Amino acid sequence: MMTIKRRLLLISNSTLHGGGYLEHCKQHIQSFLGAEVKRVLFVPYALHDRDAYAKTARQAFESLGYGLDSVHEAENPVDAVQKSQAIFIGGGNTFRLLKALYDKNLIPAIRKKVFEDGIPYIGSSAGTNVATISINTTNDMPIVYPPSLQALGLVPFNINPHYLDPDVNSKHMGETREQRITQYHEEQDTPSVLALREGGLLLVEGDKATLLGITGARLFQR
Amino acid sequence: MMTIKRRLLLISNSTLHGGGYLEHCKQHIQSFLGAEVKRVLFVPYALHDRDAYAKTARQAFESLGYGLDSVHEAENPVDAVQKSQAIFIGGGNTFRLLKALYDKNLIPAIRKKVFEDGIPYIGSSAGTNVATISINTTNDMPIVYPPSLQALGLVPFNINPHYLDPDVNSKHMGETREQRITQYHEEQDTPSVLALREGGLLLVEGDKATLLGITGARLFQR
Repeated sequence: MMTIKRRLLLISNSTLHGGGYLEHCKQHIQSFLGAEVKRVLFVPYALHDRDAYAKTARQAFESLGYGLDSVHEAENPVDAVQKSQAIFIGGGNTFRLLKALYDKNLIPAIRKKVFEDGIPYIGSSAGTNVATISINTTNDMPIVYPPSLQALGLVPFNINPHYLDPDVNSKHMGETREQRITQYHEEQDTPSVLALREGGLLLVEGDKATLLGITGARLFQR
Repeated sequence: MMTIKRRLLLISNSTLHGGGYLEHCKQHIQSFLGAEVKRVLFVPYALHDRDAYAKTARQAFESLGYGLDSVHEAENPVDAVQKSQAIFIGGGNTFRLLKALYDKNLIPAIRKKVFEDGIPYIGSSAGTNVATISINTTNDMPIVYPPSLQALGLVPFNINPHYLDPDVNSKHMGETREQRITQYHEEQDTPSVLALREGGLLLVEGDKATLLGITGARLFQR
């Protein structure tokens, strides 16, 4: 049996109500990255203002003792990925993020680093969506058109971050999240969807996946 | 000045909380279609079970005195559009709907009927989204990948149906609808977005647009 080196920390949401940026998962990030990693490569493409976003992320990681480089500041983004010790892809708009990953030809580069070199990958919200098979189960608005919905495929299923249980008291008639995922499974050959509530994290080590946090998750199967 | 024949009734939502299918807008539909139209061509592609959906729509239109044919029952959908007296595209998943319109080559056929022949077009929810420039401002999950997000372009702006005002008491950290539309406008050359609250309808006659219903709308401009 081949050993897969994959190490992923997939976070549902960057900010929990009432807390600061990444505050609710700082300890998980620290024990995930450990002491060997010195610098993290940040991917800010999901938000429009990349400078401001990198500044926010830098503050959070520096407070944990890690340096942070943002890939948007690199002359050659593919090169920056190839030299990285760890990758963190932040949240925002998933369509915008995935389109930028394609435009900059980063999909194969990131896959190689995770699967072959075994560097740790952290994703939050949109960064969690793009780690999966596809972004078919994002909650985001399709503000741009990526060349495909296929994503990094670091895990063999989809995730729905920010999962919200149906609100029986709601008078809004838009589909619930449950209905939306069920509609996805009406389509042929669709993978399972792990619905991660806010506060939830998925730790993936090789072929083992562990749910962290106290809010739990739901697994939808076709 | 060229006169545009366009006549559209764009509905935010098919069902209002506590009411039946199309119940809240039956009178608007009746005065919009008038007495000349005898049969309506229904487009059920936004939902998976097309037979059941056509049955629901047929009951609603027959109760108003109109016959209803569903395009999914036609041998040749383009031909059915060409022969139609009026078109109604129902709600569901906007990505699934738009993909089917492309797959069946109905985009040019419907545009021609509306712009050149001046037949009345009714859209509800996803059917309203596809009537606009693009589906970039849909709320739906991208469960399938259409060949483009460009839509029928029957009006020169976008619509966000089922618009929800920000809830200041919410502890959920997903983006509000306002934030999502603002993210859309961070992208270049993006059109205005009319955010139609549930219960709202837009009547378009030639170059004139009238907001109907009592819930109102918000206009977002880049």
